Amino acid sequence: MANFKKRFTADAYAEGILQGDRIMLSRAITLVESALREDALLSEQVLEKVMHATGKSLRIGITGVPGVGKSTFIEAFGTYLTGLGKKLAVLAIDPSSQRSQGSILGDKTRMEELSHNPAAYIRPSATGSSLGGVTTKTRESMLLCEAAGFDIIFIETVGVGQSETAVHGMVDFFLLLMLAGAGDELQGIKKGIMEMADAIVINKADGDNIQLASNAKIAYENALHLFPPSDSGWYPKVLTASALKNEGLTHLWELILNFEKHMKARGQFEKNRNEQNLKWMKETIRHQLEKLFYDADAVKRVLAAKETEVIERKVPANVAARQLLDLFF
Amino acid sequence: MANFKKRFTADAYAEGILQGDRIMLSRAITLVESALREDALLSEQVLEKVMHATGKSLRIGITGVPGVGKSTFIEAFGTYLTGLGKKLAVLAIDPSSQRSQGSILGDKTRMEELSHNPAAYIRPSATGSSLGGVTTKTRESMLLCEAAGFDIIFIETVGVGQSETAVHGMVDFFLLLMLAGAGDELQGIKKGIMEMADAIVINKADGDNIQLASNAKIAYENALHLFPPSDSGWYPKVLTASALKNEGLTHLWELILNFEKHMKARGQFEKNRNEQNLKWMKETIRHQLEKLFYDADAVKRVLAAKETEVIERKVPANVAARQLLDLFF
Repeated sequence: MANFKKRFTADAYAEGILQGDRIMLSRAITLVESALREDALLSEQVLEKVMHATGKSLRIGITGVPGVGKSTFIEAFGTYLTGLGKKLAVLAIDPSSQRSQGSILGDKTRMEELSHNPAAYIRPSATGSSLGGVTTKTRESMLLCEAAGFDIIFIETVGVGQSETAVHGMVDFFLLLMLAGAGDELQGIKKGIMEMADAIVINKADGDNIQLASNAKIAYENALHLFPPSDSGWYPKVLTASALKNEGLTHLWELILNFEKHMKARGQFEKNRNEQNLKWMKETIRHQLEKLFYDADAVKRVLAAKETEVIERKVPANVAARQLLDLFF
Repeated sequence: MANFKKRFTADAYAEGILQGDRIMLSRAITLVESALREDALLSEQVLEKVMHATGKSLRIGITGVPGVGKSTFIEAFGTYLTGLGKKLAVLAIDPSSQRSQGSILGDKTRMEELSHNPAAYIRPSATGSSLGGVTTKTRESMLLCEAAGFDIIFIETVGVGQSETAVHGMVDFFLLLMLAGAGDELQGIKKGIMEMADAIVINKADGDNIQLASNAKIAYENALHLFPPSDSGWYPKVLTASALKNEGLTHLWELILNFEKHMKARGQFEKNRNEQNLKWMKETIRHQLEKLFYDADAVKRVLAAKETEVIERKVPANVAARQLLDLFF
């Protein structure tokens, strides 16, 4: 798609973004998402030119399985935050959209109220050929949104794939949405996601569900108490909320502000971001090295056969690796 | 050290190992642990020659923070298993031993009874320059132990470092040792380790501690119930045990056999091992590619400066990565 669209100069993109021009921001994100090599170089230039204006937002990751009420929650919490005078950008990563365009189109009309809110900007994530690709593009898009003046960035994932670890590695605060009726609804959540959460919100705590949600809150609090705190000394908190009834949102926002204060007081906020950035650099290097290796004809030709030998235990895995490396060099 | 020792032919090592000759096994593990390039090639040959005799043991990872009674537990459980006629090998990974030889020497006398047991073989892990290095050597040592006829392999880690993920990636069953008095003793356990456990044993359930251990068991059961099962459909179990009084060991062994049956009935046992092997191959490739990159003079010369630029947000991390990659090629 992007190939048929008009390009601007890096200066034009950067200037537009720094002035908060949404159309230029959208075009720049499209550029970031493009698979063309010349677009990648141009978007690098744009990013470098706006770099000085990045880093000022609060980055919040939000995850939860389908059915947990994520869209309604983001709509309600987002509207609450814009009501406080905040400018909010929502970036959504949907692994399924890598395969079909359907869910991306769906995303656009999903948050009806927020999408018409002048203080909010909603952008579904790029389709991409690899998870590494999608998430590095999300990082770049996040920086562009910051440069465009957004105070808060939501990065939304569906909680069933591998993108959560990547998102955890690019946000300041990681929020997990759950439902009451602990147990069954967890089948879809991947192992390890709960341990990354800075807070769990039991959503849909309304009507007949209030008591159940309150029980679930206690159960999760007890469970989380058994888990070690993160290096920052922050113990994950559990809240109940009703996105439908706009309840629990003030409490959640206070919690997030407390978290930010806690982290900044210990120098953990900046430390975490620095580590995230260095890790991003190293992951990019690793992806490129691996891409080069696995795309090489000499490797491609024998990889499947080598894998079979390893599975059939005809050759130890480390020996197979060495043989492939010998072919590569 | 290894450089001054006598080498044998690959055939001699392999023959000795396949005959269950402990001295040859120990020498082969020393070879595996050697940092010399020619030793690496020789140990590859040994491994290839014994490969057909590997894969028949049950591989059990055991972790827990210092103070949890790991040595006493392994001594008691190991003695119990050899009492059933099993041949047991214990490989211990101790990250601190990468720095000083002290704890390795300590390890040797740690399990007094087991170390004099003719059906048991205890070997502290190699010192190594990197975690990747240590764990790949542990995998190779594990295969050599299998070829030497051991039925059960324990791989022991201290539960405070990063080696647990690597060990989880090479064993069939992952056991976490805990103490009663939930909460405080967890400070040392790294996040994410509990989610990898196939079973938790509350150790030191004896004397005044019995009631506490029983309470802890219930608390952990409730907590684990909130977590998703692994892909195999196995829900982690919680047991109490007293290594000191030899209590709970039969129950644990039955649990492990049930686990094995559960996994084999679903084809998950083999599937898991195949995935582990392919992952080992890919990780070896990745480590080698990264080593080549970070050892390159062109990269070494500017890496620290580039990292500073990234931290100071003078350059986006992905752009810094591309610049380093350009220097490398």
